[in-house]
Amino acid sequence: MYYIGVVGSFAFAISGALVAMNKKLDPFGILIVAFVTAVGGGTLRDVLIEGRNIFWMEDPSYIYFILAGAVCAMIFQDKLDRFRTSLLLFDTIGLALFSVAGVQIGLTFDFPYIICIILGVITGAFGGVSRDILVNEIPIIFQKEIYATISSVGASIYIVLYHFGFSRLLTEIIPILTIILLRIFVVYKEIMLPSIYKNDETVDEEEW
Amino acid sequence: MYYIGVVGSFAFAISGALVAMNKKLDPFGILIVAFVTAVGGGTLRDVLIEGRNIFWMEDPSYIYFILAGAVCAMIFQDKLDRFRTSLLLFDTIGLALFSVAGVQIGLTFDFPYIICIILGVITGAFGGVSRDILVNEIPIIFQKEIYATISSVGASIYIVLYHFGFSRLLTEIIPILTIILLRIFVVYKEIMLPSIYKNDETVDEEEW
Amino acid sequence: MYYIGVVGSFAFAISGALVAMNKKLDPFGILIVAFVTAVGGGTLRDVLIEGRNIFWMEDPSYIYFILAGAVCAMIFQDKLDRFRTSLLLFDTIGLALFSVAGVQIGLTFDFPYIICIILGVITGAFGGVSRDILVNEIPIIFQKEIYATISSVGASIYIVLYHFGFSRLLTEIIPILTIILLRIFVVYKEIMLPSIYKNDETVDEEEW
Repeated sequence: MYYIGVVGSFAFAISGALVAMNKKLDPFGILIVAFVTAVGGGTLRDVLIEGRNIFWMEDPSYIYFILAGAVCAMIFQDKLDRFRTSLLLFDTIGLALFSVAGVQIGLTFDFPYIICIILGVITGAFGGVSRDILVNEIPIIFQKEIYATISSVGASIYIVLYHFGFSRLLTEIIPILTIILLRIFVVYKEIMLPSIYKNDETVDEEEW
Repeated sequence: MYYIGVVGSFAFAISGALVAMNKKLDPFGILIVAFVTAVGGGTLRDVLIEGRNIFWMEDPSYIYFILAGAVCAMIFQDKLDRFRTSLLLFDTIGLALFSVAGVQIGLTFDFPYIICIILGVITGAFGGVSRDILVNEIPIIFQKEIYATISSVGASIYIVLYHFGFSRLLTEIIPILTIILLRIFVVYKEIMLPSIYKNDETVDEEEW
Repeated sequence: MYYIGVVGSFAFAISGALVAMNKKLDPFGILIVAFVTAVGGGTLRDVLIEGRNIFWMEDPSYIYFILAGAVCAMIFQDKLDRFRTSLLLFDTIGLALFSVAGVQIGLTFDFPYIICIILGVITGAFGGVSRDILVNEIPIIFQKEIYATISSVGASIYIVLYHFGFSRLLTEIIPILTIILLRIFVVYKEIMLPSIYKNDETVDEEEW
């Protein structure tokens, strides 16, 4: 569980740094966006759970992994210059690992399954949403990539595997891979959820 | 008190779904906006009160009422198509019920009256503010409808009635009706608070 | 420690009221922005620290100092009409005092130094960030004034002085003065952090 959190923080820190560098922020600004992206979801989860300490305050080693992620992104900016692909990759890894981590922590507190799934989505998605609010973008969650939908699918699969007593390893690996593959598939195929609007041709794209 | 919370959640969920549908979000996006609108204020209140669990994590039945509100809004979108009127109605019901619920919970924790009033305003207004930040609108709180002012008037009336020992029913009904009638009156009459600026004719409306 | 918090709240309330008046909000809107600016950072800090009550809920006297600050700003708006200078002054005083208060509270909870510095930056910077999000501005933290960098420098100086056992007075005064002087110096000299981008001449300023 610790490794899932650390690798997820590292990946989200890179995704935050990439967005910040794309906006030409200064190094300290990059660090802040990386930090908020990496800890945002888990911090909201821990604030909501009465009696639980904030994970990065209890174990400051997370902070150094986040710092490492941000520094890596700055050093390897040439290698990462295909911005959209790099961002998608690291953002998706963070989403997958944190969604699973959120469900796991919900289960250790004996919350009902529906709450565990919501905690998974919050942990996975809120960091990216905070990042996008900070840099004043439309949150990626509302774009057609159906970010949070995929997180909730992965969290629900975790709950099903857990409920039927699958091994710990499978229960972790299957939702993580599902989220990663599903997101990449959805982004490349430009799939969207079915529309509920009757006359979609009148949608005014300019509004966004 | 439970019914006030449930009906308020249902009404705010509809208001959130209406705003999301007006922005043409997909069904899952609508669900998220409905959820954030309905639980935003009460969640912030419960986070601020040390030792209190988050209401919808302690009692997940709220989640199903919120889901029902969002689904109703999607199904009856034709009936609700006079967007501004429908939004005003459900948003106002949610504001009234949640403002009262916030004050009540503050009183059960023996906070001073001023804190109870602030908790009422937070509970009533923060869901709508979150909704508007999520969909990247200027928060409705800062438009001329003086959203939060009305919430604080209702919360203050509750405190006065409570202080002088009125019956529980009256203490709940009078502030709820006051908030609903006041808001509808203010919106239709386009009343604003008196200006404190000396040369208001120079206000640049375009700025907004 | 109490006086630092009270004077900081008063200064931040003025800064919030100034921004709100610059946006021509009504008196109640001004009050809300002043309140959020003054309590935002400390509230987030207290929410993050498990077992700590929110400072203004435990001691409502803060609310009256914030009210006083907002009213002062409204009354003396003619005197404060050089908007940028007044805002810089009060915002900087609030930043300095709250950064120090955040570190001090972290130390009383025996957090590691790195967490105390982060709590200082959160306490100092988050109120101003909330203010700017509320009125839909690009947060000042990302402008060239390197707001949070200065807060973290001050917080780090506090930790160094504390670690080496300097007197309480010096440990408080030196970081406060450093933050104030550094920020004024940086704003007037228009200093920025060194760029990490190779071809800065291509930065598209219009993007902001």
